[in-house]
Amino acid sequence: MSDNHKTKSAASDLPELRIAYIGGGSLNWAVRLIGDLAAQNQAGGAGFAADLRLYDLDHAAAERNARLVGRYAAEGAPLRAEASRTLAGALQGADVVVVSILPGRFDDMAQDIAIPERYGVLQAVGDTVGPGGFVRALRAIPMIADIARPIEQYAPNAWVCNLTNPMSTLTGALYSAYPGIRAWGECHEVTKLRQIIAWLANRREGHLRWGFRDVTVNVLGINHFTFVSSASVGGIDMMPVYMEFARERLATGWRATPRDPADEHARYFEDENRVKFDLASRFGIAAAAGDRHLAEFLPQSWYLDRHEAFGFGLTPVDYRKRDQAAKRAQAEALDNGAPLAPAQRSEEALVDQLRALAGQGMHLSNANLPNRGQIPNLPQEAIVETNALFTGLGVQPVVAGALPDALAAVIAPHAMRQTALVAAVMEERWNDLFPLFVTDPLVAPLGTDRARAMYDEMLQATAAHLPEELVQGAA
Amino acid sequence: MSDNHKTKSAASDLPELRIAYIGGGSLNWAVRLIGDLAAQNQAGGAGFAADLRLYDLDHAAAERNARLVGRYAAEGAPLRAEASRTLAGALQGADVVVVSILPGRFDDMAQDIAIPERYGVLQAVGDTVGPGGFVRALRAIPMIADIARPIEQYAPNAWVCNLTNPMSTLTGALYSAYPGIRAWGECHEVTKLRQIIAWLANRREGHLRWGFRDVTVNVLGINHFTFVSSASVGGIDMMPVYMEFARERLATGWRATPRDPADEHARYFEDENRVKFDLASRFGIAAAAGDRHLAEFLPQSWYLDRHEAFGFGLTPVDYRKRDQAAKRAQAEALDNGAPLAPAQRSEEALVDQLRALAGQGMHLSNANLPNRGQIPNLPQEAIVETNALFTGLGVQPVVAGALPDALAAVIAPHAMRQTALVAAVMEERWNDLFPLFVTDPLVAPLGTDRARAMYDEMLQATAAHLPEELVQGAA
Amino acid sequence: MSDNHKTKSAASDLPELRIAYIGGGSLNWAVRLIGDLAAQNQAGGAGFAADLRLYDLDHAAAERNARLVGRYAAEGAPLRAEASRTLAGALQGADVVVVSILPGRFDDMAQDIAIPERYGVLQAVGDTVGPGGFVRALRAIPMIADIARPIEQYAPNAWVCNLTNPMSTLTGALYSAYPGIRAWGECHEVTKLRQIIAWLANRREGHLRWGFRDVTVNVLGINHFTFVSSASVGGIDMMPVYMEFARERLATGWRATPRDPADEHARYFEDENRVKFDLASRFGIAAAAGDRHLAEFLPQSWYLDRHEAFGFGLTPVDYRKRDQAAKRAQAEALDNGAPLAPAQRSEEALVDQLRALAGQGMHLSNANLPNRGQIPNLPQEAIVETNALFTGLGVQPVVAGALPDALAAVIAPHAMRQTALVAAVMEERWNDLFPLFVTDPLVAPLGTDRARAMYDEMLQATAAHLPEELVQGAA
Amino acid sequence: MSDNHKTKSAASDLPELRIAYIGGGSLNWAVRLIGDLAAQNQAGGAGFAADLRLYDLDHAAAERNARLVGRYAAEGAPLRAEASRTLAGALQGADVVVVSILPGRFDDMAQDIAIPERYGVLQAVGDTVGPGGFVRALRAIPMIADIARPIEQYAPNAWVCNLTNPMSTLTGALYSAYPGIRAWGECHEVTKLRQIIAWLANRREGHLRWGFRDVTVNVLGINHFTFVSSASVGGIDMMPVYMEFARERLATGWRATPRDPADEHARYFEDENRVKFDLASRFGIAAAAGDRHLAEFLPQSWYLDRHEAFGFGLTPVDYRKRDQAAKRAQAEALDNGAPLAPAQRSEEALVDQLRALAGQGMHLSNANLPNRGQIPNLPQEAIVETNALFTGLGVQPVVAGALPDALAAVIAPHAMRQTALVAAVMEERWNDLFPLFVTDPLVAPLGTDRARAMYDEMLQATAAHLPEELVQGAA
Repeated sequence: MSDNHKTKSAASDLPELRIAYIGGGSLNWAVRLIGDLAAQNQAGGAGFAADLRLYDLDHAAAERNARLVGRYAAEGAPLRAEASRTLAGALQGADVVVVSILPGRFDDMAQDIAIPERYGVLQAVGDTVGPGGFVRALRAIPMIADIARPIEQYAPNAWVCNLTNPMSTLTGALYSAYPGIRAWGECHEVTKLRQIIAWLANRREGHLRWGFRDVTVNVLGINHFTFVSSASVGGIDMMPVYMEFARERLATGWRATPRDPADEHARYFEDENRVKFDLASRFGIAAAAGDRHLAEFLPQSWYLDRHEAFGFGLTPVDYRKRDQAAKRAQAEALDNGAPLAPAQRSEEALVDQLRALAGQGMHLSNANLPNRGQIPNLPQEAIVETNALFTGLGVQPVVAGALPDALAAVIAPHAMRQTALVAAVMEERWNDLFPLFVTDPLVAPLGTDRARAMYDEMLQATAAHLPEELVQGAA
Repeated sequence: MSDNHKTKSAASDLPELRIAYIGGGSLNWAVRLIGDLAAQNQAGGAGFAADLRLYDLDHAAAERNARLVGRYAAEGAPLRAEASRTLAGALQGADVVVVSILPGRFDDMAQDIAIPERYGVLQAVGDTVGPGGFVRALRAIPMIADIARPIEQYAPNAWVCNLTNPMSTLTGALYSAYPGIRAWGECHEVTKLRQIIAWLANRREGHLRWGFRDVTVNVLGINHFTFVSSASVGGIDMMPVYMEFARERLATGWRATPRDPADEHARYFEDENRVKFDLASRFGIAAAAGDRHLAEFLPQSWYLDRHEAFGFGLTPVDYRKRDQAAKRAQAEALDNGAPLAPAQRSEEALVDQLRALAGQGMHLSNANLPNRGQIPNLPQEAIVETNALFTGLGVQPVVAGALPDALAAVIAPHAMRQTALVAAVMEERWNDLFPLFVTDPLVAPLGTDRARAMYDEMLQATAAHLPEELVQGAA
Repeated sequence: MSDNHKTKSAASDLPELRIAYIGGGSLNWAVRLIGDLAAQNQAGGAGFAADLRLYDLDHAAAERNARLVGRYAAEGAPLRAEASRTLAGALQGADVVVVSILPGRFDDMAQDIAIPERYGVLQAVGDTVGPGGFVRALRAIPMIADIARPIEQYAPNAWVCNLTNPMSTLTGALYSAYPGIRAWGECHEVTKLRQIIAWLANRREGHLRWGFRDVTVNVLGINHFTFVSSASVGGIDMMPVYMEFARERLATGWRATPRDPADEHARYFEDENRVKFDLASRFGIAAAAGDRHLAEFLPQSWYLDRHEAFGFGLTPVDYRKRDQAAKRAQAEALDNGAPLAPAQRSEEALVDQLRALAGQGMHLSNANLPNRGQIPNLPQEAIVETNALFTGLGVQPVVAGALPDALAAVIAPHAMRQTALVAAVMEERWNDLFPLFVTDPLVAPLGTDRARAMYDEMLQATAAHLPEELVQGAA
Repeated sequence: MSDNHKTKSAASDLPELRIAYIGGGSLNWAVRLIGDLAAQNQAGGAGFAADLRLYDLDHAAAERNARLVGRYAAEGAPLRAEASRTLAGALQGADVVVVSILPGRFDDMAQDIAIPERYGVLQAVGDTVGPGGFVRALRAIPMIADIARPIEQYAPNAWVCNLTNPMSTLTGALYSAYPGIRAWGECHEVTKLRQIIAWLANRREGHLRWGFRDVTVNVLGINHFTFVSSASVGGIDMMPVYMEFARERLATGWRATPRDPADEHARYFEDENRVKFDLASRFGIAAAAGDRHLAEFLPQSWYLDRHEAFGFGLTPVDYRKRDQAAKRAQAEALDNGAPLAPAQRSEEALVDQLRALAGQGMHLSNANLPNRGQIPNLPQEAIVETNALFTGLGVQPVVAGALPDALAAVIAPHAMRQTALVAAVMEERWNDLFPLFVTDPLVAPLGTDRARAMYDEMLQATAAHLPEELVQGAA
């Protein structure tokens, strides 16, 4: 740690990190993190203890999470937690801040998707780019700025992990509101490609030897539109193997296990890697994120219009609501005494990253950071996703090299609009927003007039979460 | 002049430039340049004498142009000319080289437009971006490189003016083939906006006082997709006046004089400025080039699909052929003794630029040059169009400042693809071409498969002008 | 003008600029500017009228200058002036702001030179770099910031000309205090080289034809350490002629006219160009500023230690005081009715620059501006001196190209320290100052301990003009 | 590995790297590397097998080294080696190339130091910067280029480790001769600071727990003039502890163990860290390299003039010769059957780096690489020293952040001169060399004339190793 906050855990000889967790009533990330913290000694190497300060607008949710921590602690995990009533209280003394908020309700998200759909614009996720990602950013940037400023005041040297989407713009908003912040944006999408490569490496050896964590990849791109230029397993260059496999499976796609037609979650969240394979053949570099995300950065005619043929679904917000209700029920059951399953390490990298920040070894994983040379053919200071090194010194980006030219020309305008969107919202230049909206490749084909009508309709639908001047301009 | 080639004209006390003119059998630029050279003393200030060395694959055309120079000289213009049988002969000892070639025949250009049209892709000009501009560049880049290399050998310090389209890629090709070249790309499109502003300035004063040369503008963008961020006439900031005018005329458009319905040239080459006015209202900055050019950089749905409503035509190559035949007949008549009209100064800036290079005053005009800081939010070294200063020291770019963010995100990928296209052709990386082709906004909506079919068809149609490996890859 | 403040003069048909003149009680620049304004129609081309608002801490001096303007106006010059009692009053409505202050008194300047001299550090001027320039900047940066902030408030779009030394740091301070400022730093030193070149051009032609204004030069460097990479007179490349001349006169030096031994001013302010000639032979590029200034950027052993042999003097502050007293007496005599000599155009470029800003033609001259590509091998955003273009659009830097490598390695650290000095003072990081001071090439050879003693002594001597915390740190 | 050369060792299940070792008759690095390869399994984690191809102008030395490898192999180390008669033969099929040559003989090095000494210029080492480092680079750059070109031909994808000094210029020369090379420069000097910090961490804990490999440091600078901005041991920020220690020991210096007055090696190669401590107090950042190296980048008055007071020696080349003779005798004894001591891991990082390149885990250590964003306030593409990450993907620089401003202004001109020196030699621009030589801070105080005399004398003394044109220019 670069400051001296870190102390030793009372209950153990381990270094202890104080972690402020902001949000997380979403039930998703918070519970997984708690499980990973409890399970962390499974990862091998020395671990760390954690003192969690949980802050959520829904204080009851924070308290429920604190009780969950307590149950793991009772079983010996080096954890403690308390729910904080104020943001300042949670931040004070924090070594690490985790930001995981929901920008607006699912009903807002539903409108982000439904309104464009009426204009003929399809979105598979709707939280990153395209009209949905744009309007979600409009709601979220001020919320994130309202978290960054107290971080500057109460925990200026803390390491700050953003888990909230849209990742690029919101990580950018953290840096815009507090330029000295030590923040990175964390996302697990690249895992998907690493799992395919691990499968290929195992096939090559004839037995199960490698997991995705054994696959070292060089990551380049922006969040949810990430690529991998080289991959190594046990010192073997796996890229030729992968590219050959992608060519072979271009027409059929591939999954590690067959899809269960009854599995609604799989239908909406999983894919057959056909977009990945197609992009690899187009641009000569492996695409890394999930197909639903990749598709949204490109003209609708490429993949979204043919999403069924390409084997991926458009996630309905309706399903998200049902899924959330189920998770809430689980959490409440757990809180009411349902038996606690043994902690199991998830596929998330956050706890590995925290352990390295606690000075227990190094960790390399992809992270979203301002571009300071990582990718020379994307704009400086745009938020890019490449490998970053986590050590006791903090988070440092690794120079990844250049993207293929044609791909850089696809990614750069997205990155430029993301940077400009953050700046326009932070500086309250409301009139500068529509030119950014209308030039997104999912919006541009509508023409300027229909795009404007759609934009105004979308702002009205989520007006409760937007500044008044912005909505009035749209009225 | 930075070298000492320049001598005094025998026939006058004026400094004399030796000018190698490469190409120009096109009858268009060469004749206009000769007229401007003859008329140049009308421009006020001291002039210069010119010793022209004309080189054309069609040697008879070069000889005809030399005879035309002779007629002006006989009337007292400080000019002399001879047709050179070799490129080396024309270049040896040149102070200035003018490159004005036709990359392929009009029949090739006709295919550049007709094939995409069958795929539903409309182009107004087809020589700059989009599928037509791309394939034209494939033909022309090697031709231009074959001119740049002898320039390095025979006239390494000469000032080189490229007049050939596609301007950005071909100026880039000159620098790629001979990095030490002192080249700029010259284009008159910005004149169109300056004329509107001069008209507005005259309206404001109530009488005819200003011409377009009195309008100082700050130019930013890439060739044929240029913008103007500020404009001054006699010290008055004309930008608010223009922006107000653009808003007023958004729906109706505007022309200085009504269009004659019988004027076929006007139908195909002129416009009503409605694209300019619309872009001004969208991006908050004045668009400067002709509407036909501006439209091709944007999604087809914006302007090309509605070109009639927006008041501009799609120029048929058929008309170009008829126009060329008429010009050739004129040239032949002149060559056969038809009376020579008095030389009149055209609207082109080239002779003004040459006079400044000859050390006779300064001249400021827009020019295409590698980006060395002129526009900070476009990629370094891409060929951009901004003001450049012409003096006895040469051509120096003027720092223009940043484009509005949303517009920069539209222009940057065009500039990135142009740079990459030149590099791929020069390095014979044929497989890297299609990814650049398919991501052009006029091509991308086709989807990758139909775009590939169109690409292959276009290459076959112009195969005679392309390297064999490239065409085979497309077969 | 980019705003619409400019109006027509009541007394004439000329465009009128409102000029706020801040400082100028120094009697030097203000009187020369007033004379140039009165004489400007001599320059040819259309002129402009001026409405001056004079502000000086010494209000009587401002009033005296206003009366001087009145006398010229009475003779028909299109000028008017009033002395303003407040800075805000002078700035309100200004089209142009001229900043010409004296940072501290001559007694402070005397210490800036005398103390280092006791440590064996010689300075010829002591106002730019070295220990004297550094401490002068410490005094002046906060004063300049106190002018920049009201400019942001009262005249945010005005063009701001800084005439105050140290030029690089103070122009940097204007941009640091108000990043949106439209400021340039104006200095006449390059004129010295242009005059030599004009003399050489006249010698070549055998008669007096050219003045220094006919010499177009490409300027590169930082203020007072400027170089010229190419020079053109009437289209002739004069650089080979100059370099040959510099070689010939390396040993003897050269002056246009012999030095009058009785001329004290000449003894202290003029030179024999031997430093210029020596630097040209060392680095292969012409040095442009006065020898006294050039010498201060280099190790003392190069020129300062041998200043008599090299034919230049170390200007005593004592002489400056006497000179100022003489000028004051002249000004008072004039104010008391002494006859007004006819206005004569001086060698300063400021009025030419203002005329261009008023929309009356273009003007090219060297100016100090943030590096935005002008010189690629000096740091971006450092204040550099290159040509800038003045037009109705404002002041725009011209891309000058790279310095020779070895020279860039001499200039870059000066530029880096200047940028860092401004930042440290503006952010009140007092401890970061000494590391910058001790690494200046005139200071470094002292060793760190003696340098520290000298630094502390210098701060104490001018403590009245410095922040208390800074001086305490030095106590 | 990014190519597929790597195979499995016949003798083991380990991945095997083929390593071409160029040079190494120096007896120093080669023997240490062989020992480290033999000892590598001591480091924990999986290891690798090595197939060495040894090439030396002194073929007998290469054969002797091959026999040494054979002895370790006979004891079970997974190694094999053969001496190659040609460079091409050694390179063909190499996964890794190690370059460790001696540029000239010790007699040349003796002159690099003795001649400047006669001019009053002291050097502690004379192989990095200053007159000695410059002339050594003149000898070595062409030699290194003659190795880089065959690497391009025979092993274009190999990882290339340069061990030869001057490190910055020679690593730059590798990239200049073959821009696609995958080279890094390896140096152990930063170890010295890490050992002090480990000692401090152990003192803090009260027992011996940490070694220098447990100290994670953020390295910034150029080779032999490196700094550390943060340091972590077991998650504890050690920088405040170190800075406090440096202040305390400013006057006395510090060594882990007392110096044995009889130990000649210690006298000439070790130090008391007083330069490190002094620089830390001056610039607010820890200096990392040995004091003898650090001193040579600064004015002679700072440390070299007072080297005895500062506790470090000026290494006589005479001692280097005796030391080499002793090492040669040892090597010959070993070759003649003297007993082989058990392989012990040295402090060098090279084998750890190779193991990571072989896909066996990650390794982080400082390396010399072109600046692609690692240090934003040093010039892009200059060779800088920061941390780099070694994995199965190769060597990737880690973004280190900015140097303190004043220090950047000291380092940047060194880096600029190094880059320019390489370019001038590679392009045979001999006249551009002296301006770079004369502006080095150890040379500049001589004045230009004496510096020129020294330069010419130094070139004559080593003329046998220099191009004829260069020496003639100096005659």
